[in-house]
Amino acid sequence: MIRTIILGQGMVANYFAVGLERIKAGEIPPYGVPLANVKLRRKIEEIEIVGSYDVDAKKVGKTIYEVAKKEIGEVSPIPEKLKEVEVREGVHLRSLNGVLSGVLGLERKMTLKDAVNIIVDQWREMSPDVIVNIITTENAKPLNDISELEERINGNDVEKLAATQVYAYATLKYREETRRKVAFVNAIPTPVANDENIVKMYEKNGLPLFGDDGATGATPLTADLLEHMATRNRKVEFIVQFNIAGNTDFLALTLPERNLMKEVTKSSMIKDILGYDVPHYIKPTGYLEPLGDRKLVAMHMEYYTFNNLKDEIYINVRMNDSPALAGLLVDLVRIGRICIDRGICGAVYPVNLFYMKMPGPPGSKSISKILAFQKLKEWLREIDGLVEG
Amino acid sequence: MIRTIILGQGMVANYFAVGLERIKAGEIPPYGVPLANVKLRRKIEEIEIVGSYDVDAKKVGKTIYEVAKKEIGEVSPIPEKLKEVEVREGVHLRSLNGVLSGVLGLERKMTLKDAVNIIVDQWREMSPDVIVNIITTENAKPLNDISELEERINGNDVEKLAATQVYAYATLKYREETRRKVAFVNAIPTPVANDENIVKMYEKNGLPLFGDDGATGATPLTADLLEHMATRNRKVEFIVQFNIAGNTDFLALTLPERNLMKEVTKSSMIKDILGYDVPHYIKPTGYLEPLGDRKLVAMHMEYYTFNNLKDEIYINVRMNDSPALAGLLVDLVRIGRICIDRGICGAVYPVNLFYMKMPGPPGSKSISKILAFQKLKEWLREIDGLVEG
Amino acid sequence: MIRTIILGQGMVANYFAVGLERIKAGEIPPYGVPLANVKLRRKIEEIEIVGSYDVDAKKVGKTIYEVAKKEIGEVSPIPEKLKEVEVREGVHLRSLNGVLSGVLGLERKMTLKDAVNIIVDQWREMSPDVIVNIITTENAKPLNDISELEERINGNDVEKLAATQVYAYATLKYREETRRKVAFVNAIPTPVANDENIVKMYEKNGLPLFGDDGATGATPLTADLLEHMATRNRKVEFIVQFNIAGNTDFLALTLPERNLMKEVTKSSMIKDILGYDVPHYIKPTGYLEPLGDRKLVAMHMEYYTFNNLKDEIYINVRMNDSPALAGLLVDLVRIGRICIDRGICGAVYPVNLFYMKMPGPPGSKSISKILAFQKLKEWLREIDGLVEG
Amino acid sequence: MIRTIILGQGMVANYFAVGLERIKAGEIPPYGVPLANVKLRRKIEEIEIVGSYDVDAKKVGKTIYEVAKKEIGEVSPIPEKLKEVEVREGVHLRSLNGVLSGVLGLERKMTLKDAVNIIVDQWREMSPDVIVNIITTENAKPLNDISELEERINGNDVEKLAATQVYAYATLKYREETRRKVAFVNAIPTPVANDENIVKMYEKNGLPLFGDDGATGATPLTADLLEHMATRNRKVEFIVQFNIAGNTDFLALTLPERNLMKEVTKSSMIKDILGYDVPHYIKPTGYLEPLGDRKLVAMHMEYYTFNNLKDEIYINVRMNDSPALAGLLVDLVRIGRICIDRGICGAVYPVNLFYMKMPGPPGSKSISKILAFQKLKEWLREIDGLVEG
Repeated sequence: MIRTIILGQGMVANYFAVGLERIKAGEIPPYGVPLANVKLRRKIEEIEIVGSYDVDAKKVGKTIYEVAKKEIGEVSPIPEKLKEVEVREGVHLRSLNGVLSGVLGLERKMTLKDAVNIIVDQWREMSPDVIVNIITTENAKPLNDISELEERINGNDVEKLAATQVYAYATLKYREETRRKVAFVNAIPTPVANDENIVKMYEKNGLPLFGDDGATGATPLTADLLEHMATRNRKVEFIVQFNIAGNTDFLALTLPERNLMKEVTKSSMIKDILGYDVPHYIKPTGYLEPLGDRKLVAMHMEYYTFNNLKDEIYINVRMNDSPALAGLLVDLVRIGRICIDRGICGAVYPVNLFYMKMPGPPGSKSISKILAFQKLKEWLREIDGLVEG
Repeated sequence: MIRTIILGQGMVANYFAVGLERIKAGEIPPYGVPLANVKLRRKIEEIEIVGSYDVDAKKVGKTIYEVAKKEIGEVSPIPEKLKEVEVREGVHLRSLNGVLSGVLGLERKMTLKDAVNIIVDQWREMSPDVIVNIITTENAKPLNDISELEERINGNDVEKLAATQVYAYATLKYREETRRKVAFVNAIPTPVANDENIVKMYEKNGLPLFGDDGATGATPLTADLLEHMATRNRKVEFIVQFNIAGNTDFLALTLPERNLMKEVTKSSMIKDILGYDVPHYIKPTGYLEPLGDRKLVAMHMEYYTFNNLKDEIYINVRMNDSPALAGLLVDLVRIGRICIDRGICGAVYPVNLFYMKMPGPPGSKSISKILAFQKLKEWLREIDGLVEG
Repeated sequence: MIRTIILGQGMVANYFAVGLERIKAGEIPPYGVPLANVKLRRKIEEIEIVGSYDVDAKKVGKTIYEVAKKEIGEVSPIPEKLKEVEVREGVHLRSLNGVLSGVLGLERKMTLKDAVNIIVDQWREMSPDVIVNIITTENAKPLNDISELEERINGNDVEKLAATQVYAYATLKYREETRRKVAFVNAIPTPVANDENIVKMYEKNGLPLFGDDGATGATPLTADLLEHMATRNRKVEFIVQFNIAGNTDFLALTLPERNLMKEVTKSSMIKDILGYDVPHYIKPTGYLEPLGDRKLVAMHMEYYTFNNLKDEIYINVRMNDSPALAGLLVDLVRIGRICIDRGICGAVYPVNLFYMKMPGPPGSKSISKILAFQKLKEWLREIDGLVEG
Repeated sequence: MIRTIILGQGMVANYFAVGLERIKAGEIPPYGVPLANVKLRRKIEEIEIVGSYDVDAKKVGKTIYEVAKKEIGEVSPIPEKLKEVEVREGVHLRSLNGVLSGVLGLERKMTLKDAVNIIVDQWREMSPDVIVNIITTENAKPLNDISELEERINGNDVEKLAATQVYAYATLKYREETRRKVAFVNAIPTPVANDENIVKMYEKNGLPLFGDDGATGATPLTADLLEHMATRNRKVEFIVQFNIAGNTDFLALTLPERNLMKEVTKSSMIKDILGYDVPHYIKPTGYLEPLGDRKLVAMHMEYYTFNNLKDEIYINVRMNDSPALAGLLVDLVRIGRICIDRGICGAVYPVNLFYMKMPGPPGSKSISKILAFQKLKEWLREIDGLVEG
C-alpha cells in the first residue's frame, strides 16, 4: 500500500482522487497516466488516500466525496470510497490573497510552530508514504539558508514564508520525530526541488523530493514541438502562445508577480532545447470564469527552413486542465514509494525532468518530454523499478 | 569531394542545388539540414553536383541554372555555379502518365537495355559517389525475384517497370562495370529500400541504399505528436489530416492508386508508435495549382485524458514542400559517402528510420522522428561518422 | 396547426423531430432556429409531425421514437410524443446504391405508378400542410420537359428518376386529387426548385416550393466570410476548405459524381459574392465513420490587402452536422404554411436565398447569408408574415 | 483635389502615403479600399497629401519619403512623389509617455496656445480639405463642457489634455480664422466623435467629423462572425480572442489603462449585435517586438445549436496591421470631401458605423460591418455621393 496525503483539495486533487478510485475499481482505463503501460513495481491499486488538507471554509470538515461531488460531480461519477477521508484545516499564509476571500488556516488561531506540530501529529496517525502538494499557485522565493526556514517558523514570520515551505518543513519534522520516510511531491511552482537548501535537507534525511511545477498544459507540447524543430535544424523566428482558463489556478496566475514566475521557466526551456534564444510571448494570458477547468491554448510559430524560406504553424488546443496534472500524480506517488523502497533521496532528476516544468535540483537543464520519457524509463530499469527490467 | 548525381530536376532538385551552393558560398545558414550542427566527417562544402537527369523537354539540354531560374527564380537567387551542369535525358516509363504531357525519355528512341548502357557510360565519366532519386511519384510494385529486374529490362518491358527501378538497376550495372562504389538515395515512394530483392543486391555489391520516401511534410510532425501522446498514455480517438499543394508531386498524388500508396504508410506508422490502431483520414487530399510549392496541412486529433475526459488539438501548417526534402538530401548525400568510406552497405536502417517515411529494409518499424534522430546520432558515433564522436 | 410529413427518417429528421418536441415542451430554447426571435405569424408550437417515410428495413414499421432512440438516444433525451408516428415505407430508386445495403422501397414490389398512388392515398389521410424532403443525397438531373416526369413514372423508369422527383410528383398528384395545398421543402441537392419544369408546375398548382440543399455546414460561413472580404475590397488569392464527417450523408458524398454536384454550387457562390472567380478547393473531402454526426471543417484563405500585401486566415470548425439543418426546417415548415395562407407559390426566392445552398428558381444568384437574412425579414414584413410587421 | 494633412507619421501614415501614391501611379490595384469598386464622386486620384506632423525627433524635418523608406522600405517600393512633403513638429502632450523616449513636441518650447497658433498658421498655407488623425493610441477622457477645451489650452494644462483634443481644437480654430471648411478623421480611440461637446462644435461650425478608432484588426471580423451566429439564432457561450503585434501601437496598448479603453468597446459591440452579453476575453494581449507590423489573432467561440448541442470554431489570422487602416483612410478622406461638398457636418453616423470601432455620435449602436456597408452605400446614394446613384 502507498499511503498518500493531499495538500490542497482543489480541482487537481478532486480529479486525482476520483480518477484514482475509478481506475482501482476498474471503471475506466488509466489514460493520462504516463507509466500505466509500463510495469512499475508499485501498482496503481496500491495507492490509498489517507489524508487531505485545505483552507477553504467550504471544504474543511467535509469528506473528499462531498467536495468532489460539488466541484466535478456534473462531469464525472464520484466513487463512494471517497467518503472515508475528511478534509482537514491546513495553512495558507499569503497563498490565497487576492484569489479567494474568507479563507481559514491554522495560522489564524495559533503560531506557525504550533500549526506545524498539530499537522505533524496528525501525520503520525496517518502514517503517509507520499505527500502531494497541489495547493493554489503562490508567490515564493528560495531560502537563503536552511536555518532561515526554521527561524521564520519559530519567529511566526507569516509574511516571508509560503505555505509550501511550511509543509516541506513539516515533512522534515515528521521524519525527525517518527524516523519514518516520506516522499514529497511538489506539483506547483513554489521552489522546493529548486531550493538548494531544502534539497540538501531532504538528501540528508533520506527523503525523495519531486518538483517543481507539474509539466502539464501547453508547455510539454511546446517542448516536444521545439525538439521536433531542432531535429530538422529549423530556425525558429518567434513563438507566441496564449493560454486561458477559468479555474482558481488561472485566477491566481493573473496576479502579475505569479505570471512572471512562469515566464522565466519558459525562456530557459526554449534555450535548453533549441540551443538559442527565441523571441517569445508565452504566459498564462487570461482568466475567463465560465471556461472553468477547460483550458484553451493558441500557439503560433514561424521558422526558417532550407534555402532560408519561411514556414509557419498554428496550434489550437482545448484541454481539461486539472486532470492532466492528476494523471501525472498517479505515477509520482508510485515512484515516490519506489524511491523510498530503493533508498533514493533528494531531488530526483530523472523523475523531475519528465514530470516537472522546472525540474530540480537547481540548475537542471530542460529537455523535451519525449526524450525525458526515454531517460525516465532507462532510469527505472537501472534502479530495478520495473517488474520486467 | 562527394560527387552527386540528381535524378529528376524538379522542384526538390532545384531547391537542393540552389540551397547547397548558397550554403557553400556562405550566403545562407544551413537551416533545414538536420545534422548541420553535428560535426559529420563529411562536410556540406564537399558536395559537388556532377550530373542531372530529367525527361521534361523544357529541361533536357538546359543547365540546372536555367531550369532553377525558371522554376524558383522569383523566390530565390540562383547561384552562377549551377551553369556548369547540364540536364540530360533520362527515362520515365509510365511515371508521368496523366501528369505531364509531351515528355521525352530515352526509352522512346531505344530499348531499355541500350538506355541503361548509355546512362552507365555517362556515369562512368561523371564518377558519382551518390545518386539521388527525386523523380515524380510513380506507381510501382516490389519485384518478385531479382532476376525479374534484369529480365524485364532485357525484354524491354516498359509497362511493368518503374523508372526508379531502372535507375536502381543502372546503379548496380555501374558498380559491376567500373568496380566503383556509389550510394543510392531513393527519396520517393517507389519501393527500393523496401524491395527485398533490390536490398539484397545492394548488400551483395557493397552499395549503401537509403529509402524510401523522404520524411517531410506533415508525417514527421504527426509521428512526433503521436509520440507526445504516447508519453502521457493518452488514448487517441481519431486523427484527421488534410494536405493540399500545387506542385507536380501533388498532381501525381491525385491519381487514386498513388494516393493509396501513401495511405498504407500512415496506418502502419500510427500503430508502430501508439501501439494500437486509430481511425484516421490521412492522405494527400487535393491539388490546387496556384498554391505551387506551398503545402497546407490541417490536422485534428481528439484523445482521452485522465478520468476518461476528452481533449482536442487542431494544427494548421503552411510550409514550403520541396525545400523540406532538399534539406534532408544534404545530409543523405554526406552519409552516403560516409557509408562508402566505412564499408557500410544495403538498406541502412538507422539512417532510413529518421529520413524516410517507409524506412527500409522491408518490415522495419517506424518510430517517432525525435527518437529516430537520437538513434541516428548514436549510430553515427558508433561508426565513427562524427568528428568528435 | 401545421401538419408536417418527413421524407427520410435519418439523422436530420431525428434531430428535427426530437428538437421540435423538446422546444414545444419548453425543455430547451429554440437555438439554431433562425427566426425564433422574430415573431412569425405561425408559431413553433403549431408544428405537428403527422407522417414519416424511409426505406431502411431497420426503420420502416418502427415509431419515430424508436428510430430516434437508437440513433441519437445517447446524445439527447427522446420525447415520448414521438411514439405516435410510425415510419412508413417510401421509395428510394437509386438513391442508396453503394451507400446502404438491403434497402426496401415500394418500387421493389410494385410499379412506380402504384407506389405513387399508395403514397398519395396515405397523404390524403395525413392531410399535410408541408412535406419535408431530407432523404440521403442522391444523384439526379433536372428534367428536360415536365411531361418527362409523368412519362417516366408511368413507364416505371427507375433508372432515370430520383426518389425526390417521385415525391415531388406525388405532391402534385396529391394537390390534383384532393385540391388541398401543400408546401414542398427540398433540403437536399436534387434539383427541384432548380428544375424549371417542376417550378412551373408548382406555380401553376399554387404550391410553395423551397429548395435546393439546405444551407448548413461550412458553406454559409464561407459565404459570410467572403462578404466580409468583399466589404473591404480584399482580393482573395485562394480558398481551401476541407470537410469530413462520419454520417450517411458524407458516405454518400464520397461517391465521386455526388461530390461533383456540390463543387459546382460553391464555384458559383464565390463568383456571385466576390464578383470574380477564385482558385478554390471546396468539397466534402472525406468520410470517417467514428466521427458520426460530428463534422470537421478546416478552411484557409489568403488575400491581398492595401498596398498589395498579403494576409491569411485559418478556420477550424467542429459542428454537429444534422442539427444545423434540423433547425432551419423549423422555420421552413412555418414559412411553408404562411405561404399557403398568403397564396404564395412556386420557388420562393427570398426564402430559398437564405435557407438554401442552391436557391431556386434556376438562375438565382447567391448572396451572403447575412444579407439574405435581412432580405428574408423584409419580405416577411411585406407579405404580412410577422405579427408585428 | 482633396488636400490632406496627416497627424502622426507612423506605420499607418506611411502605408497610407505609399499605397495612395502607388495606386495613383497605377502600380497596384486599390485592394483594401472598401469603396474602390463603387463609383464615389471623389476619386482616389484627387487625394493630395499636403502636410504631415509628428513628434519623433527621427522624423521631424525629414520628408515622408525618407521616413517611409526607413520604416517600410524593405516591404514596399516608396514613390518619389513623397519627397515633396516634409514632416513638421506637432504636439504630443502625454501620448507617448512610456512608449517612446526623447520625443519632441511644440509644447516643450511654448505654451499650448502658441503651439495651436503656429499649427493653424501652417494650415492656412496648406489649405487642407481633410485632416487625418493617426497618432499613437493615447489615454483621454471626453470633456465635461466645451469651454473646458479652450480653458485648458489657454491655461496650458498639458496634463489634462490629449494631443488629439488639441488638434481637434486647432481644426475649429482654423475654421474660425479662415472660414474654410475641413473634415476631421479621428482613426484612434481618443473620444472625439464620441465627445458630445466636440461633436456639437463641429456641427455648429459645419465641419464633418469621423471617428473614433478605425475598424480594423479582428474586431470587424468578430462583428461579422457574431452577425453570422445571430442569423442562425445560435447562442454564443463564450468568446476568447487574443491579439499580438510588434508595432508602436501595440506597445502603447500594453499600458493597462489604454487596454481598458479597448475592452469597453468590444463588450458593447457584442451586446449590440447578439442582443445579449457573452462572457468574453477580447483585448490586445501582448507585444512582441520582432513581429513588427504583423498582427496575430487567435479566436475561439463555442455556441449552442439546435437541440441544445454545442459547436465550436477556432480562427487564426495573420495580418498586416497598419495597411488595413490605411486602406480605410483612402475612403474616409474622399467621403470627408464629399461631406464638405454636400454641406454635411457633425459626427456622420452612416460613415462612422462602418469605418469605426466606436462609431460617433455618442450612444450610437454597433452593427455588423456587412450590414453597415450596405447602409453606407445606401446613404451615399441618398446624398448623391455616387456617380451612378
